[in-house]
Amino acid sequence: MEYDTIAAISTPMGEGAIAIVRLSGEEAVEIADRVFQPKGKKRLVEVDSHTIHYGHLVDRKENQTVEEVMVSVMRAPKTFTREDVIEINCHGGLVSVNRVLKLLLNNGARLAEPGEFTKRAFLNGRIDLSQAEAVMDLIRSKTDRAMNVALNQMEGRLSTLIQKLRQTLLETVAHVEVNIDYPEYDAEEMTHEMLLNQTSYVRDEINKLLVTAQQGKILREGLSTVIIGRPNVGKSSLLNSLVHENKAIVTDIPGTTRDVIEEYVNVRGVPLRLVDTAGIRETEDIVERIGVERSRQYLKQADLILLVLNYGDDLTEEDERLFEAASGMDVIVIVNKTDLEQKINLERVKELAENHTLITTSLLHEEGIDRLEEAIAALFFQGDLEAQDLTYVSNSRHIALLEQAKGTIEEAMNSIDMGLPIDMAQIDITRTWELLGEIIGDTVSESLIDQLFSQFCLGK
Amino acid sequence: MEYDTIAAISTPMGEGAIAIVRLSGEEAVEIADRVFQPKGKKRLVEVDSHTIHYGHLVDRKENQTVEEVMVSVMRAPKTFTREDVIEINCHGGLVSVNRVLKLLLNNGARLAEPGEFTKRAFLNGRIDLSQAEAVMDLIRSKTDRAMNVALNQMEGRLSTLIQKLRQTLLETVAHVEVNIDYPEYDAEEMTHEMLLNQTSYVRDEINKLLVTAQQGKILREGLSTVIIGRPNVGKSSLLNSLVHENKAIVTDIPGTTRDVIEEYVNVRGVPLRLVDTAGIRETEDIVERIGVERSRQYLKQADLILLVLNYGDDLTEEDERLFEAASGMDVIVIVNKTDLEQKINLERVKELAENHTLITTSLLHEEGIDRLEEAIAALFFQGDLEAQDLTYVSNSRHIALLEQAKGTIEEAMNSIDMGLPIDMAQIDITRTWELLGEIIGDTVSESLIDQLFSQFCLGK
Repeated sequence: MEYDTIAAISTPMGEGAIAIVRLSGEEAVEIADRVFQPKGKKRLVEVDSHTIHYGHLVDRKENQTVEEVMVSVMRAPKTFTREDVIEINCHGGLVSVNRVLKLLLNNGARLAEPGEFTKRAFLNGRIDLSQAEAVMDLIRSKTDRAMNVALNQMEGRLSTLIQKLRQTLLETVAHVEVNIDYPEYDAEEMTHEMLLNQTSYVRDEINKLLVTAQQGKILREGLSTVIIGRPNVGKSSLLNSLVHENKAIVTDIPGTTRDVIEEYVNVRGVPLRLVDTAGIRETEDIVERIGVERSRQYLKQADLILLVLNYGDDLTEEDERLFEAASGMDVIVIVNKTDLEQKINLERVKELAENHTLITTSLLHEEGIDRLEEAIAALFFQGDLEAQDLTYVSNSRHIALLEQAKGTIEEAMNSIDMGLPIDMAQIDITRTWELLGEIIGDTVSESLIDQLFSQFCLGK
Repeated sequence: MEYDTIAAISTPMGEGAIAIVRLSGEEAVEIADRVFQPKGKKRLVEVDSHTIHYGHLVDRKENQTVEEVMVSVMRAPKTFTREDVIEINCHGGLVSVNRVLKLLLNNGARLAEPGEFTKRAFLNGRIDLSQAEAVMDLIRSKTDRAMNVALNQMEGRLSTLIQKLRQTLLETVAHVEVNIDYPEYDAEEMTHEMLLNQTSYVRDEINKLLVTAQQGKILREGLSTVIIGRPNVGKSSLLNSLVHENKAIVTDIPGTTRDVIEEYVNVRGVPLRLVDTAGIRETEDIVERIGVERSRQYLKQADLILLVLNYGDDLTEEDERLFEAASGMDVIVIVNKTDLEQKINLERVKELAENHTLITTSLLHEEGIDRLEEAIAALFFQGDLEAQDLTYVSNSRHIALLEQAKGTIEEAMNSIDMGLPIDMAQIDITRTWELLGEIIGDTVSESLIDQLFSQFCLGK
C-alpha cells in the first residue's frame, strides 16, 4: 500500500545530545533531498540504502542554514514501516528539533499522528496487532521483567501461539464442514472424540495463557500499592525506605493528568506503583486528604495494601477499621517502631491479620525492609517463575479476548458433549477463531485500530 | 590521539519512540560486535563505514536477548569525535536505554563523563573550543535567533574572525621582533604608523564584537524579566497572557535546582526569562514571598522590569516605592485595568515613568498585549538588527576575554603613541594574542577545559 509521507520527532522531548526527526512514506527521500545539502556530492536519491550522510539542512526559500545533521537513508521494504524511511539526527534541543520538523512539514511532509509509524508497520504487514501493541509496552515498561515480556511479544511469540490455535480451529471447522456437506465422505472419521480432543487442546492453551495474565498485567502496569495507617505510625518513612532502597523509576509521567501522584519502585523485579505518595508525604494521611469514601475506592482498586501499625502504641478502633476496610484484599501487615517499648497486643494483631503476612520493622533503624521486600516478591511470584521463557499475556485487551474465547470454546465443547447437531459447535468454534484473530489484528475493525494506535506516543 | 572507549545515552531521558546509546573510541566497533547479533551475516568489524545494520543486542553471558536495535557504524576520522563511533538506536524507554547502556559497560566500554564526546572532538582537533561551546549553546537555545547565533559559532564564524585577528597580531609581533633583533633590517619600515594601523584594526574588530555581546548574551541566556506591582494589579494575568500568547518554551529545566521557578517565553524573537513565576501565581506578590531585601536583589539582577499599576485605583506610596526600587533599570510601565473607571493620576505616572515606555492595557479584555510585546522587542533590538549574518559573541567567557584583550591592545596602542620602547608594546600585543587564543582554546589550561566540558549534558 502507498501512503503519504509523514514526519515526527521520534526521541523524547527535552535537552540532549541528539534528537531524531523521522520521515516515512513514498516521498521520504525526495522531501529530505529538498532540504539537505550534503557534504559529499551525491543526492540522497542516489545513495545506497542503509547509509548515513553528513551535511546541513537548508531552507532554500529563505536561503538559510537550519541545522547540521546526519541523515540515514533506509529504503523499503527493509524498514520499520516497510516504506522508505529517513532519519535525521540533529542536535537535541527544543528549538533545533522543532525547526527541523517545521522545515520538513513546509517541504511536503505531513505531521504524523501518534503511533502512525507503528500503524503503518501493521497496515503494511510487517508486524501484527499484538506485536504493535508490544512496541508501546516495551517503551513504557518499568522493570526488566516487564521489558522481557514486551520484547517476547514484539518478537511474535504470542502471535505464533495464537496463530497455531487458530490453525487448529480452522482445521476442525474444515473437517466439520466436510462432515456436514458430505456426511458419506467422513474421511478422517470426525468422531466426538476427535472434536473434543482438538477443542480441549485449544481450551487448555487459552487457560495456560490466562494463568499468566494476572502477573503479566502487573508486570506491565505495576502493582498498585496503597500504604495505610494512623498518623505517625511511619507511613512516610516506609514510603521513603521503599523509594530509596529501590531507585524510583518514574515520579509522575509528564503529559498525563491524574488525581494522585504515583511513584514506581522496583522491588525485586516487582514494579510497585505507590499511589498518592504526595498525599502521604504532605498530610501523612490518605483518608484525611481524599475523604473516607474515595479512600475506600482507592483501597478497592489497589492490588496490594501495606497496613502499618505502631508497636509502641495500643491498637485503636481506627486500626481495627483499617483491617475491615482492607478485608478480602492482598494485605501485608507491618508492625513498625519495634525500637519503642511494646504496647501493641500482638496476639490481637495476629487475629486481625488472619492469613496475611505479618512483618515487624524498625524503619528508624532501617530494620525489616528486607523482610518486607521478600514478602512482596513472595506474594507476587508465589514461588514459581523466574521463567524467562514464559509467554505472558499482559494486555487487558488480549486478556478480555482470551476470556471470551475461553467461553465460546467451552460452549462448543458442551454442544459436542451433549451430542447436539455438529453445526452448533461449528458456530462457537468459528467465533473462537474470530476472537483469537482480534488479538493479532486479523479480524478487527478499522475504528479499533485507530483507537489503539492513538494511545501511542508521538513519533512511534 | 587514542583514548579508551566511552558510552552514554545521547537522547533526552523520557519515553519516546527511539533512543540512542553512543560509543566512541578505539574499541567502539569491537565492543558493539561483542553484543550485536546481526540479522545479516556480516560482523560490524567487516561492514563499510557509515552504514546501518538491523539486529539484536544479546547478553552472551546470560544468553538473553536485550533489545531489538539498529546499529550505525561510523569509522574514524569522519565522525563527531574523529574516533570510531557506534550509534545504537533502541526503543526510547527508560528500562530499554538503561539496559543497553549497562550491556555496553559490561562489555568493555566506560561511562562517558558529561561533554566527553564533544571534548574528544576538541582534543582530536575537529573543532576548537568556541565551536565546542557553541554545541551546548545550540542545544540549550530558546529561540530561533539564539540557535542561529550558536549555529554560526559552531560552524566556526567566530573562530575564523578570532584567527584572523591573531594572525594580524602574530605578524605585527614578528615585525617587531625583526625590528628589535635586526634594527638594520627593517625591511618593511616598521613605522609607528604601521604598528598603530594594525593594532587599531584589531581593537576596532574587538569593539565590534563587544557591541554584539549584550544582545548575544540575552539571546543565549534570555532576558531576565521580573514583574512587580501591588497585589491585585494583574501581575498573574500579565504573566498568563505572556505565557499563553507566546507558547512557553521551557517550564523549569529538570536536573537543576533553583530558588525560583522560571518560565521562558519567546516574545517576537526575544527570549524572556520570567523569574519567579510560581511566586507570582501563588502569592501574587514577589515581595511578600521572598522578603524585601532579596526582592531588591532580584530586581538588580533583572534585565527588564515590568511594573504594573492599577488604572482603577489611586497611586499609592507603595507604587512610588516600586519606581524607586526600579530606578536606573530597563522598565516598562504597564497601567492595567483600563476597563475600570479611571482613578489613577496619569500625569503623575508619566512623571514617575520618566523616559521609560508607558503602556495601557486591559488584560481582562485582552487589550494591549500587542503593544507590550512591541515595546519589549523595540527595547531589545533598538531599531537595528534582523541581521542574520552578524557574528554575535554570546558567551560570558568569551566576552570577558574580549574585554581583557581590548584592554591589552589599548595598552599597546598607548605605548606606541607615547613613543615608548617597542618591546613594551610587544608584551601587550603578545598578551592580546594569548587572550584571543583562550577563546578558541589554543592557549588554555587543561583544568579550564575539564571545567568547561563538565557543564555539558551527558551523552554529548
